[in-house]
Amino acid sequence: MTILIKDIKLNGKETTIQIDNNIISKINPKNPDKSDRILNGKGKAVIPSLLNNHTHAAMSLLRGYADDFPLQKWLSEYIWPMEKKLKAKDVYWGARLACLEMVKTGTTCFNDMYFFPQETARAAIDAGIRAVVSEVFFDPLETGEKLSNSLKKSIKELKKMDELITPAIGPHAIYTLSNESLAWLAEFSKKEGLLMHFHLSETKKEVDECIEKNGKRPVELLDELGFFSKHSINAHCVWLDEKEIKILAKRKSRAVYCPTSNQKLSVGKAMPFKKLSHAGVIVSLGTDGNASNNSLDLFEEMKSAVLLQKFSSNNPMEMTAIDAFKLCTLNAAESIGLNAGLIEEGKLADLCIVDLKNVKIVPGHDLVSDLVYSADGSCIETVICNGKIVMLNRKVEGEEEIIEKARKQAFDLVQR
Amino acid sequence: MTILIKDIKLNGKETTIQIDNNIISKINPKNPDKSDRILNGKGKAVIPSLLNNHTHAAMSLLRGYADDFPLQKWLSEYIWPMEKKLKAKDVYWGARLACLEMVKTGTTCFNDMYFFPQETARAAIDAGIRAVVSEVFFDPLETGEKLSNSLKKSIKELKKMDELITPAIGPHAIYTLSNESLAWLAEFSKKEGLLMHFHLSETKKEVDECIEKNGKRPVELLDELGFFSKHSINAHCVWLDEKEIKILAKRKSRAVYCPTSNQKLSVGKAMPFKKLSHAGVIVSLGTDGNASNNSLDLFEEMKSAVLLQKFSSNNPMEMTAIDAFKLCTLNAAESIGLNAGLIEEGKLADLCIVDLKNVKIVPGHDLVSDLVYSADGSCIETVICNGKIVMLNRKVEGEEEIIEKARKQAFDLVQR
Repeated sequence: MTILIKDIKLNGKETTIQIDNNIISKINPKNPDKSDRILNGKGKAVIPSLLNNHTHAAMSLLRGYADDFPLQKWLSEYIWPMEKKLKAKDVYWGARLACLEMVKTGTTCFNDMYFFPQETARAAIDAGIRAVVSEVFFDPLETGEKLSNSLKKSIKELKKMDELITPAIGPHAIYTLSNESLAWLAEFSKKEGLLMHFHLSETKKEVDECIEKNGKRPVELLDELGFFSKHSINAHCVWLDEKEIKILAKRKSRAVYCPTSNQKLSVGKAMPFKKLSHAGVIVSLGTDGNASNNSLDLFEEMKSAVLLQKFSSNNPMEMTAIDAFKLCTLNAAESIGLNAGLIEEGKLADLCIVDLKNVKIVPGHDLVSDLVYSADGSCIETVICNGKIVMLNRKVEGEEEIIEKARKQAFDLVQR
Repeated sequence: MTILIKDIKLNGKETTIQIDNNIISKINPKNPDKSDRILNGKGKAVIPSLLNNHTHAAMSLLRGYADDFPLQKWLSEYIWPMEKKLKAKDVYWGARLACLEMVKTGTTCFNDMYFFPQETARAAIDAGIRAVVSEVFFDPLETGEKLSNSLKKSIKELKKMDELITPAIGPHAIYTLSNESLAWLAEFSKKEGLLMHFHLSETKKEVDECIEKNGKRPVELLDELGFFSKHSINAHCVWLDEKEIKILAKRKSRAVYCPTSNQKLSVGKAMPFKKLSHAGVIVSLGTDGNASNNSLDLFEEMKSAVLLQKFSSNNPMEMTAIDAFKLCTLNAAESIGLNAGLIEEGKLADLCIVDLKNVKIVPGHDLVSDLVYSADGSCIETVICNGKIVMLNRKVEGEEEIIEKARKQAFDLVQR
């Protein structure tokens, strides 16, 4: 399968892009090969599709179910009781709804942590997009050979499902797992060469409790447990001190910024983006789940990312539009080891066609500024993932059915 | 002209809405009158259309032109040089582009302050939406009979243009006008019964300078000048102390919250929303101009409004979705004295039809939460203003032409 996108703007200049199978094979070819499919890019621009590096996709079923409550009440009275009743079918339709929202807003890869990861994987495959899927682990956890064998088996199964799927390990957080469990899961992920998705220092409370219990801050403790490596992807990273930032940089661990979720749940501080970046930590962007955002549109998340940094630092230069754009393209791809996030020959064909006539981004003085500050996902006209068209002219195959079934499943869950 | 919207959800229940001329005449009529036009509301919801209470509409021409600069550099090197070259035609096409963006995102009324207000008025009339338009005043200003007569004349002309237009007076700010000019303009606006649109205490700098120069804070000084009344609408209101809040409440003056602009320009604090509301000040919402936001989509602004309050107060209950929704419906309408902002018999027929099948707001547990946290303007399917359809099924008459002409005008301006 080959696709030719003709006369499309790339970095301000009109060009042609040739896709062979799942790769961007040629940019501006003099004699493009005969193509199975030609897309007219006139008056449009091409950008890499976006990557969302921290999600709980299936929580889309609970979007808008319980907002404006304090964190503890929200969790203990609304979210956890629902999650106890969760079935595989809920996760499939919740993730399917999330994938539809992602495709319609230009995202083709998400890094997910939740229950029933095989269902999230199935939803991603059915939507034609990439997912890193990890089962979330809480204590009590019986570590040892039995767990090791069952994990190896489920990971093998996930790997067999589709090349779009990357299995990972999902220890929940420092306050829901013992030091032993954390050390064991980290060791397992390193041995198996798996990405490890974690919630790190989101709230002051968890940091204070860790210091009280262990006499040291979370990153120091976790580092002693051998937790960090370039495979570890740490969501939130709000409450870090200088020493902790140095440790993360030294271990080549990655940080995921979740500005909307952090604001909505009033975590009290913004991630120290500049300090992390200057130390060499790769920072990417995540929306968190739809129950704590409540949107998966990374165009809105990029804006939120910049605004929070500028505001909380009292410095309008603290983060720029270009910084934000990198967070969910190049940086995100690098974080998970994916050959994507750039429009370049040899990169995976994961890309979006932007409708430059959408009123939100007119007149069009600066595309990156417009995408970050002005666009929302509806400015994306067509989406290609792994060389296949997953949205064409804003139409996604089967979207009415997905919306209907996900809605039915959501109401079934909350009334169960 | 009568319109019947059948089988549409209003506050969770299916009903029928009858519009006669420019008024919502009947809700759930047993025997609806014969209508010129019937809209099918099945699977959709009706909400009041939104009001944007602080704009510089024509600045849409400069969207994305100069982002990520410090405030002073941004103003002195980019915005002011452009504004010096501004022609009437720029303002018309800039405002026309802004009106198109507003209609496409469910806004049918805006409170504008800029140069050439008659051009902004013309753009609003051509788009079929309401505008409060004020010419912005800076010193040097020759107050007296000559100015009084010319203002009276231009206001008379604006009033004659269309019932959609409300003329107002636009003193820029305390740091760009002398005490004498401020007092004169306030006196004039009171005598003529005109709304007065002002920038109040946006930055700490202007407050500090005022204290240094006058020995008192801005609101105290302005109150002594007789500045405040229920006609005065004050954008920003970031740096207010308790005493100033009491003065604003006593004078029944109104405050406009501009969360995105305040964050983007790093003003250092969030408007004290709860204190203002508790004191009895009517607070509404504004996007500010498109050069400092860079979007006029009030669905995104409502989210920004809540997030900033929750984050800066460290309290997830500080502002709720319902609070935010009121800011740009009921409160905004009350601020400018418009009989709108609610779907009720006898109110002006300014309303939106929401597409409940838009993936962004599925499953649909709570419409207000979904509109504030999850929707963007593209969830709005149809918009009615003053009893006339201004967008039907996301199509606006002449939109391609507006986009093309506004773009041309924008590039002409920056290359002038």
